Formats: sequence, structure tokens, C-alpha cells
Amino acid sequence: MAWHAFGIDVGGTAIKLGVFDKNGSSLYQTSLPTRTDNGGAQILDDIADAVNAVKKTDAAGIGIGLPGPVENAAVVNGCVNLGWQSRVDVAGILSGKTGLPVVCGNDANVAALGEMWLGGGKGHQNVMMVTLGTGVGGGLVLDGKIAPGAHGAAGEIGHIQVKADETTPCTCGNFGCLEQYASATGIVNETRRYLAAHPDEKTCLRDDASLDARQVFDAAKAGDPVGQIIAESTGAKLGRALATVACVTDPGIFVIGGGVAAAGDILLDPVKKAYRKTAFHACRDTAFSFAKLGNSAGMTGCVKLLLNHLADEEK
Amino acid sequence: MAWHAFGIDVGGTAIKLGVFDKNGSSLYQTSLPTRTDNGGAQILDDIADAVNAVKKTDAAGIGIGLPGPVENAAVVNGCVNLGWQSRVDVAGILSGKTGLPVVCGNDANVAALGEMWLGGGKGHQNVMMVTLGTGVGGGLVLDGKIAPGAHGAAGEIGHIQVKADETTPCTCGNFGCLEQYASATGIVNETRRYLAAHPDEKTCLRDDASLDARQVFDAAKAGDPVGQIIAESTGAKLGRALATVACVTDPGIFVIGGGVAAAGDILLDPVKKAYRKTAFHACRDTAFSFAKLGNSAGMTGCVKLLLNHLADEEK
Repeated sequence: MAWHAFGIDVGGTAIKLGVFDKNGSSLYQTSLPTRTDNGGAQILDDIADAVNAVKKTDAAGIGIGLPGPVENAAVVNGCVNLGWQSRVDVAGILSGKTGLPVVCGNDANVAALGEMWLGGGKGHQNVMMVTLGTGVGGGLVLDGKIAPGAHGAAGEIGHIQVKADETTPCTCGNFGCLEQYASATGIVNETRRYLAAHPDEKTCLRDDASLDARQVFDAAKAGDPVGQIIAESTGAKLGRALATVACVTDPGIFVIGGGVAAAGDILLDPVKKAYRKTAFHACRDTAFSFAKLGNSAGMTGCVKLLLNHLADEEK
Repeated sequence: MAWHAFGIDVGGTAIKLGVFDKNGSSLYQTSLPTRTDNGGAQILDDIADAVNAVKKTDAAGIGIGLPGPVENAAVVNGCVNLGWQSRVDVAGILSGKTGLPVVCGNDANVAALGEMWLGGGKGHQNVMMVTLGTGVGGGLVLDGKIAPGAHGAAGEIGHIQVKADETTPCTCGNFGCLEQYASATGIVNETRRYLAAHPDEKTCLRDDASLDARQVFDAAKAGDPVGQIIAESTGAKLGRALATVACVTDPGIFVIGGGVAAAGDILLDPVKKAYRKTAFHACRDTAFSFAKLGNSAGMTGCVKLLLNHLADEEK
């Protein structure tokens, strides 16, 4: 095999492992269950076995994304979802078991790097990735590299306060975080609040246990007034929050991903409208796009992380 | 002379020029007027003459800070305060006239870099500099380097919206920008608003032409209730805005500078209180300090900018 590298995305239930060429094209993919029992003691052995079963002599290395804060691209200081309670030297251990260079990143950040490299942010060096899922997360890429922040919290834009007078707490303990309105959960909660406050309004949306964010956006697309109000208010809060983000890091593009992004332009149009209205003039024309790599963003970003690392080593 | 380099801070009225050693110690300083007449055509000649009059054969180069957006650490795309209407290849021209390597940065950003290197942010690699002057500006340093953003607008935190229902416009055209409350001008405006709304409140502060931000904070220190209310509300708005900044870039330290920072702890205490109350938990203990280099921050940062550039070249 010619130059090849491993991109490994470690989640709480499954580990996605891919072999990629230098251009990020996938040569091989597999996945294995994440064995979180026994304090997650088997996880790195399982990964090493999977790598060693596939690697050829000219393997360039491993990039690995982990669901926790990563220090010095090598060590995680606990990873609750993996059962790891204390510091784990992932790079040192995995390098020892495979004989390959290993570089680590936080999972949200490597996904952002992947989208910058080959996805929605392709062609840009400064990218703010916005992930609208169960929560709202993000990843900051500056000058082609992950900017993790001093405490690994850069890109945590779900916890920007967007409503000062909120009385319901966010999962983080604060009040009025973006995540409370723009996550899948938040969109459902906002819809329920609206329905409760307007019991006579005609709508196809009902406050039942099965209500989800997708239904709300589907209703909006079909012309339902409540769906449209929620899509508009969600987009407005997100757009204003991104205008704030632009005042801080001034990205070249915002890449919107996660399950909620499937709503498409019914969400993105009000985001852009609110953004253009409130952004600082120098950043008013910042581009927006949707994420393109789906579940492969993490693995792809891991390969780019490794390429950046090897390029730095060569200098 | 041993290793020496030039740090040059170009302002609209004066050019500050310093010769520094590798540790940032000042060996020589001078200043010259900024000749903005004739479209600022003389400015780079004046700078080159001043450099050539002092430089020895082992001069390492020039770092120069300019009051405008800088592209590729070399070119400014217009600089209104200098009379430059179009693109000027500052690095190319000045290098041609002096025979030295030249690297350029935006003035606010190089000041931030200077404070990171030898001032209030010493020991940190990730710094958000906050400059509270006539306006509110800032500079973002990540991983020891200036992060200018895609449109040169990173660190423009004065234009974060902190009051959604503001009816008076900011100088930028938006409504409710941080600068409208936390700049010297904003603090005076807020005090005047408060005095007008509370004509019977006992205070040593009067709405007269000479009212300035310093008087407001001096009054607060002396126990004046209106001074204390304004100090508290200014600090609260700034603290909440910095909690937002932390969700985006997660700096290791906030360095507060500019004329308003002279207020000291009467301002910083409410900033910290509001910050700790609203910051995302991972960033709650982020450090705060005051800027230390005063008017030398720009020149000092220019030398660090040059050192970074030369280190990159060596790789």
C-alpha cells in the first residue's frame, strides 16, 4: 500500500476506524464496539489490535478523536463516556502498541478540522463549525489548525448567553444558553412553550411525546405558522450568537452541522438574516455552509490532524 | 551592537520607534511626527530614514504596527488615519529602503502580543487583550501568535451586542454594542442617562461638559452611590461579554488595558463577579490582569512579531 494513515473516531458506543490516503480518500473502514466496562481498560488494546491487523510497513501514523478534553495532543484528563476516570496517555500507550506516531484531538474539534479540509469549509483556513444536535457544540479552526483554548473549551458556543432573563436552567447550570433554544431538545421545548401559551392557534404541531425538531421544521416548510415562528426564532437566536462569534474570532466561514442542520434553508435563511443584521461591518459577508462529511468528519479530521503534526515535525 | 531589532508603532499623530534586544529590553527610543499630508506619502521614507540612522550591520529586522487591517503580515489595504487611500505594500517598500526583513501587524493586535510577551499576559500563550479607551477594542493571541481573523476583525469585542433593546446607535451602526457602555465615552453617556433619570439622587457627579470616565470611578471609590452604580453596571456588561468570549476562544487570561483600566479594582471587581457568574464552567477560573506596558506595548509586540516571523523562517 502507498502512504496511508489511520483516522479513528472514538465514541461512547462505537469506534470508527478508517484508513485514508494523503488526500483524505477512504481506503478502508470498519467499526468496533466501545467496551466501556472495567473502566474502559480494553479500549486502547482493541484499537491497537484493529490497527495492527490492517497496517502495512509504510503506515504514516494515527490521528485519534476522543470525547473529552485533550492536552498537548496526547493525553486526555478523564473521559466519562469511555469509562476513563483519570488521565490516560493515549498517544504514548497507542504508539507503544502499534509502533506508529499518534496524535490526539477532541472529537468536536477534529470534526471541525475534517469539515475545513474536505467538507463544508473546504478552501478556508478559519472555520467556525457549529454542531446542532442533542446539544449545541462547535469547533474552532484558525490558520488551518484546531484552536482548543486554554481549558479545551474553545468553540463551546452552545453556552453563549442569548437570553438574559431565562428562568429555566441549561444543563450547564447557567441560564439562557444558545443550546437551550437551538439544539434539537431546545427546539422541541420552545415549540411546547409556544403551544402552551397559544392553545387556540391553528397548527399541525401537537404537544405530544413524539414531537421532535424535524417535525417542527417539516411543518414550517409546509407553511404551518407555528413551525415558521419557531424556525424564525431559532434562526434569529443562532444568527445573533454567530455575529458575536465573528466579533471574537472573525471566521471565514460558518459550517453548520449536526442532525438539526438537516432542516436546511428553512433554518439557515433566518440565521443569515439575523447575522447580517447584527454582525460587525467587516464580517457582514462571512460565508455560511452546511457540513458535508456526516459521520466521516471525525475520521477525516483525524487524518488532517496527523498530517499537520507530521508537517510540524518536519520543520 | 549585539542582536537588535526595531519595534515601530505607527499612529495617526506620532510614530514611536524603539530598538530592542532579543529579550524585549529597550536599547533606544525615539518618536517622530506622522506626516499625513500629501496622502501620507512621506511616512515610510521618514521611518526608513530613522531606522537607517540608527541601525548597525547586525540589525535583525523591523516589526511594525499599523492602524488598519493588515494582510499577510505585509500589506495594508488603506489606512485612513495615515492618509493612505489604497493598498500599500509596507513590508516590501520598507524592506527595500532599509535592507531589513519587515513584518507588519495591526496596532491593536501587536499591543496584545506585547502584553502577552512581557506585560499583563506574561506566561500565557492564549490571551484576550481588552482595550477600554475612547472605544473598546481588543486583540486575540492564540498559541503565542496574533489571530487576526479572516477580515482582520478578530478581537473587535467592542461590537459584541450586550443590550438587545438599545435605541441609540453605536458608531458602527449597530445597536447595543459593548463599546456603547464600557468605553470612556460610553461610561460618560451612561452616567448622564442615569443622572437625567434620577434628578433628585444625591451625588457628587454633575452632568456638565467636563464629566469624564475617571471622575465617575473616582466618585465610586469615594463612596458616591451614582459612581458605584455606574461602575457596577459597566463591569457587569463587560464581564458578561467576556464570558461570551470565553465560550468562543477560551483564553488563558484576559488583559485589561486602555485609559479606562486606570480605574483599577473598582471596575475589575464587578467584571470578575459577572464573569464568574455567567462563564461556562470549564472557563470559570480564567485569570484577569491589567495591561502593564502602557504606550510601549505596541513597539514591544512588534519585536515579538518579528521574532515569531524569524523563527518561522528558520523552520
